[in-house]
Amino acid sequence: MGEGVSPAGLWGGRFSEKLSPRMQALNRSFSFDCRLAAVDVRASVAYAAALHRSGWLTRNEHEALKRGLATIADEVAEKRFKADPEDEDIHSAVERRLYELTGSVAGKLHTGRSRNDQVATDLRLYVMETADALCGQLRTLQGRIVATAQAHPDLIMPGHTHLQPAQPILFSHWVLSFFWKLQRDRERFRAARRRAAVCPLGSGALAGNSYDLDRDALAEALGFGRASENSLDAVEDRDFVGEFLFAASLTQVHLSSLAETLILWSSDRFSFVRLDQSHCTGSSLMPQKRNPDALELIRGKTGRVLGHLAGLLVALKGLPSGYNRDLQEDKEGLFDTIDTLSVELAVVGEIIERMEMDPVAVAAAQAPGLLATDLADYLVRKGVPFREAHYAVGRLVLASEELGTSIDRLSLSSYQSAHPAFAADIFAVFDVRRSVAQRTSSGGTAPQAVRAQLEHARALLVDCAGDTQSEPGTKGHTG
Amino acid sequence: MGEGVSPAGLWGGRFSEKLSPRMQALNRSFSFDCRLAAVDVRASVAYAAALHRSGWLTRNEHEALKRGLATIADEVAEKRFKADPEDEDIHSAVERRLYELTGSVAGKLHTGRSRNDQVATDLRLYVMETADALCGQLRTLQGRIVATAQAHPDLIMPGHTHLQPAQPILFSHWVLSFFWKLQRDRERFRAARRRAAVCPLGSGALAGNSYDLDRDALAEALGFGRASENSLDAVEDRDFVGEFLFAASLTQVHLSSLAETLILWSSDRFSFVRLDQSHCTGSSLMPQKRNPDALELIRGKTGRVLGHLAGLLVALKGLPSGYNRDLQEDKEGLFDTIDTLSVELAVVGEIIERMEMDPVAVAAAQAPGLLATDLADYLVRKGVPFREAHYAVGRLVLASEELGTSIDRLSLSSYQSAHPAFAADIFAVFDVRRSVAQRTSSGGTAPQAVRAQLEHARALLVDCAGDTQSEPGTKGHTG
Amino acid sequence: MGEGVSPAGLWGGRFSEKLSPRMQALNRSFSFDCRLAAVDVRASVAYAAALHRSGWLTRNEHEALKRGLATIADEVAEKRFKADPEDEDIHSAVERRLYELTGSVAGKLHTGRSRNDQVATDLRLYVMETADALCGQLRTLQGRIVATAQAHPDLIMPGHTHLQPAQPILFSHWVLSFFWKLQRDRERFRAARRRAAVCPLGSGALAGNSYDLDRDALAEALGFGRASENSLDAVEDRDFVGEFLFAASLTQVHLSSLAETLILWSSDRFSFVRLDQSHCTGSSLMPQKRNPDALELIRGKTGRVLGHLAGLLVALKGLPSGYNRDLQEDKEGLFDTIDTLSVELAVVGEIIERMEMDPVAVAAAQAPGLLATDLADYLVRKGVPFREAHYAVGRLVLASEELGTSIDRLSLSSYQSAHPAFAADIFAVFDVRRSVAQRTSSGGTAPQAVRAQLEHARALLVDCAGDTQSEPGTKGHTG
Amino acid sequence: MGEGVSPAGLWGGRFSEKLSPRMQALNRSFSFDCRLAAVDVRASVAYAAALHRSGWLTRNEHEALKRGLATIADEVAEKRFKADPEDEDIHSAVERRLYELTGSVAGKLHTGRSRNDQVATDLRLYVMETADALCGQLRTLQGRIVATAQAHPDLIMPGHTHLQPAQPILFSHWVLSFFWKLQRDRERFRAARRRAAVCPLGSGALAGNSYDLDRDALAEALGFGRASENSLDAVEDRDFVGEFLFAASLTQVHLSSLAETLILWSSDRFSFVRLDQSHCTGSSLMPQKRNPDALELIRGKTGRVLGHLAGLLVALKGLPSGYNRDLQEDKEGLFDTIDTLSVELAVVGEIIERMEMDPVAVAAAQAPGLLATDLADYLVRKGVPFREAHYAVGRLVLASEELGTSIDRLSLSSYQSAHPAFAADIFAVFDVRRSVAQRTSSGGTAPQAVRAQLEHARALLVDCAGDTQSEPGTKGHTG
Repeated sequence: MGEGVSPAGLWGGRFSEKLSPRMQALNRSFSFDCRLAAVDVRASVAYAAALHRSGWLTRNEHEALKRGLATIADEVAEKRFKADPEDEDIHSAVERRLYELTGSVAGKLHTGRSRNDQVATDLRLYVMETADALCGQLRTLQGRIVATAQAHPDLIMPGHTHLQPAQPILFSHWVLSFFWKLQRDRERFRAARRRAAVCPLGSGALAGNSYDLDRDALAEALGFGRASENSLDAVEDRDFVGEFLFAASLTQVHLSSLAETLILWSSDRFSFVRLDQSHCTGSSLMPQKRNPDALELIRGKTGRVLGHLAGLLVALKGLPSGYNRDLQEDKEGLFDTIDTLSVELAVVGEIIERMEMDPVAVAAAQAPGLLATDLADYLVRKGVPFREAHYAVGRLVLASEELGTSIDRLSLSSYQSAHPAFAADIFAVFDVRRSVAQRTSSGGTAPQAVRAQLEHARALLVDCAGDTQSEPGTKGHTG
Repeated sequence: MGEGVSPAGLWGGRFSEKLSPRMQALNRSFSFDCRLAAVDVRASVAYAAALHRSGWLTRNEHEALKRGLATIADEVAEKRFKADPEDEDIHSAVERRLYELTGSVAGKLHTGRSRNDQVATDLRLYVMETADALCGQLRTLQGRIVATAQAHPDLIMPGHTHLQPAQPILFSHWVLSFFWKLQRDRERFRAARRRAAVCPLGSGALAGNSYDLDRDALAEALGFGRASENSLDAVEDRDFVGEFLFAASLTQVHLSSLAETLILWSSDRFSFVRLDQSHCTGSSLMPQKRNPDALELIRGKTGRVLGHLAGLLVALKGLPSGYNRDLQEDKEGLFDTIDTLSVELAVVGEIIERMEMDPVAVAAAQAPGLLATDLADYLVRKGVPFREAHYAVGRLVLASEELGTSIDRLSLSSYQSAHPAFAADIFAVFDVRRSVAQRTSSGGTAPQAVRAQLEHARALLVDCAGDTQSEPGTKGHTG
Repeated sequence: MGEGVSPAGLWGGRFSEKLSPRMQALNRSFSFDCRLAAVDVRASVAYAAALHRSGWLTRNEHEALKRGLATIADEVAEKRFKADPEDEDIHSAVERRLYELTGSVAGKLHTGRSRNDQVATDLRLYVMETADALCGQLRTLQGRIVATAQAHPDLIMPGHTHLQPAQPILFSHWVLSFFWKLQRDRERFRAARRRAAVCPLGSGALAGNSYDLDRDALAEALGFGRASENSLDAVEDRDFVGEFLFAASLTQVHLSSLAETLILWSSDRFSFVRLDQSHCTGSSLMPQKRNPDALELIRGKTGRVLGHLAGLLVALKGLPSGYNRDLQEDKEGLFDTIDTLSVELAVVGEIIERMEMDPVAVAAAQAPGLLATDLADYLVRKGVPFREAHYAVGRLVLASEELGTSIDRLSLSSYQSAHPAFAADIFAVFDVRRSVAQRTSSGGTAPQAVRAQLEHARALLVDCAGDTQSEPGTKGHTG
Repeated sequence: MGEGVSPAGLWGGRFSEKLSPRMQALNRSFSFDCRLAAVDVRASVAYAAALHRSGWLTRNEHEALKRGLATIADEVAEKRFKADPEDEDIHSAVERRLYELTGSVAGKLHTGRSRNDQVATDLRLYVMETADALCGQLRTLQGRIVATAQAHPDLIMPGHTHLQPAQPILFSHWVLSFFWKLQRDRERFRAARRRAAVCPLGSGALAGNSYDLDRDALAEALGFGRASENSLDAVEDRDFVGEFLFAASLTQVHLSSLAETLILWSSDRFSFVRLDQSHCTGSSLMPQKRNPDALELIRGKTGRVLGHLAGLLVALKGLPSGYNRDLQEDKEGLFDTIDTLSVELAVVGEIIERMEMDPVAVAAAQAPGLLATDLADYLVRKGVPFREAHYAVGRLVLASEELGTSIDRLSLSSYQSAHPAFAADIFAVFDVRRSVAQRTSSGGTAPQAVRAQLEHARALLVDCAGDTQSEPGTKGHTG
């Protein structure tokens, strides 16, 4: 073998023929794994240091490799790194470039290292970085939710179950309900990151490493929590990709619920909310249209992310022990999920920030039926068992429907014929502010309970261990 | 509005503000729907003709639009069509270009047409074309299977169930088993194409068209089987995408089984088959490796395709009546599925063509236990009920295991103590050729039955209505 | 082997030990495959006849088996068929019972037959029957839709896209939009049935049958369209289950859209429709509630059915050639899908029949903005290019919003400053009846177009080849 | 309302009509949610105590309810609890029974409580219990793996990647690779349990509770980690079901890989392992068969569990804020997953315990090619860059194939012509024991590294916080 290295040179001494062109098309992963360039170089820097510490690289060799890798890192960071059409994947591209820069010493970097442990290491590093970035975006969105809740301390709106009016609630209580979903999402991404932070480097192809590497030091140098415990498991484990995709799936489910609710609320029949123009599009045919496309796209993209999760699990199903090439299918769905979620989180933050609630429409929707539970509570406070109270109020609802009137317009005698415990003060119940004020137990919609909730939320926002603020989809790429 | 048209001009008279940059990132579909350019232009040509026939375009206007669209068609075909960063999607890009070429008459082309019926029309045309191309590829692959079966008329191999040796079968019978799976796949793609061939053009945004268009003529001009029956359904129906993805999913399942089987057979323990070098790769660490990567990738990509099907169904779930923007999520998974399947079918064809069976290894795997059913059949032919015969042979198998010998080495008296109907001619049963020759019922593995099967298969290959030979992933794209 | 048959007796001559109790729990399928009892007996009757024709059963033996099987068929039909705790599956239960009834001649019924071809035959027969029954239910539901459309010929309502008011449409046009979805569903179930109607019986375990069976006659006797062409493929093919589940998945997607739309319309903000009490439930806490639970359950059950489809495809992925026990996982999801869909179709039919539209609420929702497209059409009819007209109307919409008035209240001069082609007759456009009447192209919402649509729909209802009326979930079960 | 309570009585004062029978079939959940009986009673006991503490139940009332609930708890535990055909779900069944036992005081138990918070509480308690039980089963299985590894300290076998021979490894290293997968599974179930351990009780239907309940005390009494923070989120959150199903999905993926590997190894071509008869079944046709059905079923059931996860996520997608009845679809897939996983874990434990490795077959499979990496390592130790060494060994592999000999039979001069650094001691490399002994880095397959791994594994087994030993599928059910 001469100075250069061709892809055949990477694994091809025993091959007398090249891949068929169609097989090359199937086989090449450079178009998508190029976004691992930065972490690949980083892992190689650490590996070179470990080889040097164990005596397999002289100081000069080590220096040469460090310089070469630093050059490549710069090329990647400045988007100057150039692929060769022959590069099978990012790892062979980096190795090829290192040969160009350093000559045959580049051939020492693979001592005891296999693409199996290398790619697992790279992908874990990428997932760790990305999880941090998404946690940062989630926290930013939570912050917007808190700000929105604080901006509307008194707005009362109809709460729904089954999309039917249920009980009056504070708008701030509603918007905070998403804070907690996102909080769980953030916890799940952190947990996914934690379980990703196990270093496979030094596991070789499957059997381990015979060059006295200090794998604990290697793990630490790369920011992993620890080294993996079993070399076979280390190269075939993709649980961490699954966990990441699952965390993303639940986040997506939460965003789809938020989107669905705001789409309904921005429909003309509800008109609870007016979305900012900058998140709406018009129609090519109907000049009046102002469609909540951003929210619909977010709802729709739930399919994509759930599909990626399903796709990964299907690819993993039934594989025999040891690395199998099926595992290459771990990347594209992951990368698309990251890009999707990142842009969605940014847009949702803007939507929440710029949307305007319509207090008039919200108030108009507060029909007296929303207070039926309070009528039953009234009886309970007079000693009536709840089931009996519930039944009596149910009869009143039915009577009001049959009379074509609303329940607050029924006469006292109608009330008393439904249950003798009703008295003249019953009509004071028809006050949504009073109703809301009564749900004082922790987690309830009473103003003081919501204030406590807000305080708790603000405290959790401060906790940002490991989160970063940048959007993950936009870095680490190379053309 | 002046001469030009900006994206805002497409739907934006009622908007005073532009989309937020992040919303634009979420909203733009040009990067993937650009591959609809050719069909979009084709549908516009037909629509212009229909407007002209109904009197909404003068002859001159029609000629101007035809010329403009022809120019764009050429630009697309020659990959010279240039996107503008402001183009929201391929439809607005084509409309923008038409303005550049023809001026304000371009504004007449949207008369009564909405992006809702336009995009549904385009996507159906694309699916119809692609289904034809994939059917052609499936047929080519079936042809290779037939050729492979013909090339090995006499090779007998162990047939497996539960991955345990079961009965001897002809290799040609085995390889033909995939012919029928692919035949069903071809039928499903054709059925999917048939149900896609319903023309939504002229449905407007939801309510229909008020310009006296002859929709039947429009459908015919574009090669559809008929016009859609209900304008609301026409713009929201994506069943045809689902059917296509489902057909692809079962094809993928079949390819995964073929891949799994050949991966096993090319393992050193089986060695029934030797894959060509051009479909194998080596290891970056282990110099001896020759891995069946092509087959592993095909097996793994099953996840991707199943995930796309799941993703589409999730996106469609629970949408309210009328076009919703969630439907934009119908494209990327579809396009990726097409590209994936197309390259896989090409590679599988090569693999089957170039692989070599190892008759020695196959013969060595034919243990006498494969003929246990024939022993039972022997008894049945002497009048013993099958269950009783099965039980007797089971005892012989157990006896041979306990004696550590093979079943054909047991003595006649052992046989007779298992069942008195055994006679000296029993040992003639241990002949795989004789065994195979007896499965003569239609569909069985006897040589004459396989010859009849081959004849049937060849007849089906001739039937190629509507299939084309080109690979779908490689055409209709624009940069 | 004696008179009786134990599960060990079915396959166990070579076994010296019983299954572990936990393995038995994993292995037994009787609890769910018992619903195949009737088809299993039917297939055995046909198989016995075929064995008799080929000379492997004497007339007396054949008569004995026929009598025994007829007795079991009666026991199954009258729900008197008793399982034994030792029965592994329905096939061994029937075989065990046949031994009890006929003695050792029962042992001849398995001559050349394997559970592999037997279970594939049974399941195909069951799918064929069930597809017929579901097609019948789909047709019944389509009939209710037609009746509902006919009952409301004149009701105009706001049509939506993106859940925003779009254009006025006829209610009958809306409800018919579901007719066509169900029509496609019916076609898919029929296609699934057609592809299921291929008879695997006579394929043995994998290699075919050596008893001169006339498989074509067997296929015909059982109502199949033809015999399978390759014995290996015949026993491992579960495409037909996938096709059935996919057809069910799209049906479920359609039902979920209908459910979503009616849930919205029955919310207090829309109030377009009032569901019948018999499909609503109340709240255990809130006495006023009247929740559309039936529709929510139907929407929710989409998950279950899509999950079953995914589950089957996952189970099939990557299986090596030949029957593998993984295929047992084809049944439970299928059966649950059938039961789910059957009860849903029945309930949806009731809902549509009993729901009441509220013409007042529907009318109240028809804001002038719905006619914006008609304003643009007005200009087009005066020769203005559509894009220019669209832009002008967009400006009017914006102006009306800025003035806080509705678009029909703007002055003529406002109109004329938006576009000079507007004249005094412009206000006649604000008539939803006139708007609807103009969408006359086929498939549009104009009354005459909807009448033509209805006629077409009624014609398709008459076509009921092969459909039955009973609900599939309720028959063929045994305790 | 009188003494009794009918299902109508639970929520029906405002209803004048009963559910349609088909709607009842759709609506009733008793057949599956009955397994929540024990936790439902437990939660009611705690709720009654909380009402008493807040003054809403007198001491006598509280005592009466406690006695009634204790009676029901006994009935459930002894499987004597009887459903009434009218019982809609387990909650109404328990309430109905409580009425029968205590009269109208039962009507006080629902004070401020909704089925929304009640069912969420019950399901969380059930998931917590079940997660504990599954963690116990996982730990038991890990224990079997450790025991198996310890029982075979010296057995060397070929390690595979891409199902091709790769490098020699210790069998104990291989079996321990599953220990770590199960360890992650156990951690995920624990994390799922932790996130499930948030108490929604006291959230009412959506708005909170107005009866001064001490929700922290309630949470503690029921063994939750804390009370939920937002009442809206509390009743609609099903993340915990998703997390449980996801943990189960990855466990299932791991079991499918174990199953696949053992199915291969127990095939006649490998014969590395002999499964115990008690986990195999025979064939109804082929008397010699001994099929690994248990493992195939486990591999196949991966589809079912992944399908349940997909199903839940689909059901949750796009739901508007507030409890929706779609959430009832959270249970059946969960319960089936629990039952499936529980029996599988039990069977896998038995399989590992009873299977026998065949050292002769394993040894026979150790071809010299397994040591190709060691040949390259030999050169590296002489200062040759790894890539150059890899290439040289590749040429030797190719040469040996062309000569039709094995690599250890090539002459020294062949070696030296491949690379001059080869010397006479090269043949000492062909010793699998030596090869294994060199992979000494942590996590490698060298005996001392595996001993350290085993020690670590044993330490983790001791950590059993919260795990129980019973199998979850078998308790808490009521008929």
